[in-house]
Amino acid sequence: MSSAADDRRYVLMLGCPDRPGIIARITSFIAEFGGSIMEAGYHSDTASGWFFTRQAVKAATVPFELAELRDRFAAVAAELGPETDWQLLDSGARRRAVLLVSRDGHCLHDLLGRATGGELPATIEAVIGNHPDLAEMTRAHGVPFHHVPFPKDPAERGPAFEQVRELVDAHDPDAVVLARFMQVLPAELCEHWAGRAINIHHSFLPSFVGARPYHQAYARGVKLIGATCHYVTAELDAGPIIEQDVIRIDHADTAHDMVRQGRDIERVVLARGLRWHLEGRVLVHGRRTVVFD
Amino acid sequence: MSSAADDRRYVLMLGCPDRPGIIARITSFIAEFGGSIMEAGYHSDTASGWFFTRQAVKAATVPFELAELRDRFAAVAAELGPETDWQLLDSGARRRAVLLVSRDGHCLHDLLGRATGGELPATIEAVIGNHPDLAEMTRAHGVPFHHVPFPKDPAERGPAFEQVRELVDAHDPDAVVLARFMQVLPAELCEHWAGRAINIHHSFLPSFVGARPYHQAYARGVKLIGATCHYVTAELDAGPIIEQDVIRIDHADTAHDMVRQGRDIERVVLARGLRWHLEGRVLVHGRRTVVFD
Amino acid sequence: MSSAADDRRYVLMLGCPDRPGIIARITSFIAEFGGSIMEAGYHSDTASGWFFTRQAVKAATVPFELAELRDRFAAVAAELGPETDWQLLDSGARRRAVLLVSRDGHCLHDLLGRATGGELPATIEAVIGNHPDLAEMTRAHGVPFHHVPFPKDPAERGPAFEQVRELVDAHDPDAVVLARFMQVLPAELCEHWAGRAINIHHSFLPSFVGARPYHQAYARGVKLIGATCHYVTAELDAGPIIEQDVIRIDHADTAHDMVRQGRDIERVVLARGLRWHLEGRVLVHGRRTVVFD
Amino acid sequence: MSSAADDRRYVLMLGCPDRPGIIARITSFIAEFGGSIMEAGYHSDTASGWFFTRQAVKAATVPFELAELRDRFAAVAAELGPETDWQLLDSGARRRAVLLVSRDGHCLHDLLGRATGGELPATIEAVIGNHPDLAEMTRAHGVPFHHVPFPKDPAERGPAFEQVRELVDAHDPDAVVLARFMQVLPAELCEHWAGRAINIHHSFLPSFVGARPYHQAYARGVKLIGATCHYVTAELDAGPIIEQDVIRIDHADTAHDMVRQGRDIERVVLARGLRWHLEGRVLVHGRRTVVFD
Repeated sequence: MSSAADDRRYVLMLGCPDRPGIIARITSFIAEFGGSIMEAGYHSDTASGWFFTRQAVKAATVPFELAELRDRFAAVAAELGPETDWQLLDSGARRRAVLLVSRDGHCLHDLLGRATGGELPATIEAVIGNHPDLAEMTRAHGVPFHHVPFPKDPAERGPAFEQVRELVDAHDPDAVVLARFMQVLPAELCEHWAGRAINIHHSFLPSFVGARPYHQAYARGVKLIGATCHYVTAELDAGPIIEQDVIRIDHADTAHDMVRQGRDIERVVLARGLRWHLEGRVLVHGRRTVVFD
Repeated sequence: MSSAADDRRYVLMLGCPDRPGIIARITSFIAEFGGSIMEAGYHSDTASGWFFTRQAVKAATVPFELAELRDRFAAVAAELGPETDWQLLDSGARRRAVLLVSRDGHCLHDLLGRATGGELPATIEAVIGNHPDLAEMTRAHGVPFHHVPFPKDPAERGPAFEQVRELVDAHDPDAVVLARFMQVLPAELCEHWAGRAINIHHSFLPSFVGARPYHQAYARGVKLIGATCHYVTAELDAGPIIEQDVIRIDHADTAHDMVRQGRDIERVVLARGLRWHLEGRVLVHGRRTVVFD
Repeated sequence: MSSAADDRRYVLMLGCPDRPGIIARITSFIAEFGGSIMEAGYHSDTASGWFFTRQAVKAATVPFELAELRDRFAAVAAELGPETDWQLLDSGARRRAVLLVSRDGHCLHDLLGRATGGELPATIEAVIGNHPDLAEMTRAHGVPFHHVPFPKDPAERGPAFEQVRELVDAHDPDAVVLARFMQVLPAELCEHWAGRAINIHHSFLPSFVGARPYHQAYARGVKLIGATCHYVTAELDAGPIIEQDVIRIDHADTAHDMVRQGRDIERVVLARGLRWHLEGRVLVHGRRTVVFD
Repeated sequence: MSSAADDRRYVLMLGCPDRPGIIARITSFIAEFGGSIMEAGYHSDTASGWFFTRQAVKAATVPFELAELRDRFAAVAAELGPETDWQLLDSGARRRAVLLVSRDGHCLHDLLGRATGGELPATIEAVIGNHPDLAEMTRAHGVPFHHVPFPKDPAERGPAFEQVRELVDAHDPDAVVLARFMQVLPAELCEHWAGRAINIHHSFLPSFVGARPYHQAYARGVKLIGATCHYVTAELDAGPIIEQDVIRIDHADTAHDMVRQGRDIERVVLARGLRWHLEGRVLVHGRRTVVFD
């Protein structure tokens, strides 16, 4: 989604109980004012009986402001029933991301580079680390870095998490990215950032939940290793999956080799999942996601 | 697409010049009679300015016969302009495939097994070979086999191709599958079976057009080999691509090893491409395909 | 491994505690009689301190019979310590496989086709099914089929397993292939066929152990599904992994679609793993395998 | 290859005409002084009749200096015939890379990040750009940047290339990396840096040689796009291939989307190929490479 005026789009994301006529209702609404649909995705989920859609309408073909579009569409959504869940995004509005990191800098460096190169549809507002190691890398890219030390005892980390929360919320971000943060968020933060907190886990979930997944993978003798980008929920590594990928390894690869090779998958899977989230391509329903990529 | 009454679908495939309101027009037409859309795919091709859609409507929700549905939709299609190209398929109708083979039986055996197992949405009506080698395998699966010998001199193959044409056309097939046929179809047969003749080429096209692609791949020292399923056109190995895939090889693999490993890709790529064709998931525009998988 | 005289190879597989000089000792032994090494694989496993090798020596360059080669090499192996585990295979000797099946015929059909086409380095001696469904397919390929009905009550299946054991052991097979057998082998059969019983599990293990893995995968919302070929041990789906692979799915794929798409991965992963096993390319150490492919 | 004393290795790379006894000769040489082989790769190329090996010997187990090891091994190599081509590298010696870039910074940024994170077994000594765009990114990572403007007229670029040559040669680099340099090296520079100049081409070669490969891929309608890391030779995009990879695209991806998605493949393929080159894992024979990864 370029911010160039010509490419600007209003993006509708909607989920509701399925029944005949929904697509016609929504697209007729758009056709009435002459809106030009650039991308359209539809999905009828037979298992849940739920309907999902994403539509990107060329902003230049909409004869009124976004606020009015929202007002008008609210009436359509109301017809689709009280459970209907919808948003309307403006691709021309700046998206904001805040990153949480620890000591491993590969995901951070990759996202900073993508932001610099115009590949990430967001600005990185701030980076917060529980160690100071990545401060220099962050600042060299012109992004503020905050060091929030975490006590060794998990029971005493409450104030540190409180500080992280304040630093994050100051930016009202569209995405809170755990870019190899290595700390388990308390349940109330998971709830507070629900649908916005995104984690990269260095295994092909649901295999190898928790700590040292590459070492678990080595011990089990698997022939592929992977990475998983998912929304953060209170249950560890169990949130809705946005994206996954794998690479082939063999018996000659030590756990240490897997750590190195796995970084290539982590970088790409996180970047892809984050981009889809920021572009309004991910709809969540229970533990599953619908991704209109 | 199961033939079970409950799963029966009418499948609309349509391409036309893009303009606002097409989706609304088509889906309103379906909504008017209460049709339930099970699958919907839309694509606006900005490079060509063309619009494509595929929609699968639950047959049980259509209150009239397919013939009447076609008549009624013809009026909608007419509104979309004279260039509009559309079809309406009945998923409950039996599809028919005829296979052309030579000596390599791996694709044939795979398709026969899929047909037996209910994985292929078609019956294999007949198999025609320019060698008799695969007669027994074919007949063991209960399918007729015709041996049409081909003269060594390409200039003298006209009558053999004529005989193949008659054998094929007797079944009026939805797909004419060149399952490692190894003979170049004459231009008039390409034209005659346009949009129905499907080939599996044992390389990742456009690399290694023509004969002995694995040997070409070995000589070039590539690190992946592939296979390509495409519609047959008069230009050799240059028709619209339906599906491709690759596998990794390394320096220890001889051309002979590649032949063996490549078979696994050929089988899967052909089966996938053929299934998409038979289910009305492939729309062709120039040299490109739109695949609603 | 072709059985052609010119290609015939004696294949050494060896594992022993690592120390300097092992490769020199083994290859000097081969060089002394002028043996030509066609393929050589070595692996020093630093985590376990164990050394593994596979060497394929051109039979025509060995000036004595296999029995004498074994006798001579035994002296070398003795020098490498009492824990040394080794075998010497003759690629020219016929390998034998027996297949256990249930109702799903896709893996069986694939292996029968590979055997027919010379792609599988073994003959399929017999197929045993706990249902009669696949008898016709098996016999059409000229292979005997035995139907052994299994009682519904797992506690009463002892005699049926005893009958399966006798039918299998009558062929003294190099591989007992559970080609979607869907029955859990009793511990004593796992022990009896240790290192020869090979299973295909329809998930990317260790995810989704046990029944209905595609339905588990659907419920979890993963973005890739896979298959795993592994040696059977008494712990369910936990034996040493020989091969794995995955394919991408998306939100539009139902559990039923995954079942269909997964078959393509199951077929290829089982065929690959079985071929490696039969060619003496797989060495097992604890829960891990070394695969010299 | 870590530079930690304990991990330090002497790496032998050797190619020679194949004959029985080579492995025994080389490994006996190593065993005589008690050398511990950490990694061993062997390949007998039947098509060319050539033998290749790579062996990494633990430096701490070699009782003399590298210079003496080289002298001693020279006598062994002489026995293997006059065509024998070999090197002995010290994994503890610092490797040096110089990068040539233009305006696209994604490969540069990725390699700078890997160097910072200790993932690249080399230091990046300098970056040379024919445009100044990437100066700031380079210097922010503490690496010198040289801007060498190139005249529009290719016939007048001789002096610019001469300046590049001097800047590069001042560092006597182990690798000259064309990280999306977009300029065709003159034949004499290809010759001068033979075996050290590495290019990343943004297609799955040999498809789409030359300019704008993603636009060529779009026009042809392929279903996968790729990238190729290869040694630079005088013939454009035709040098020996070190590594390739692909990703799946579909009809909805414009050439512009492919450019973006292709970057993820370019980054990884270049980083992997460069690492293998620097670690002495790549042996070239004609147009093919042997990669002991």
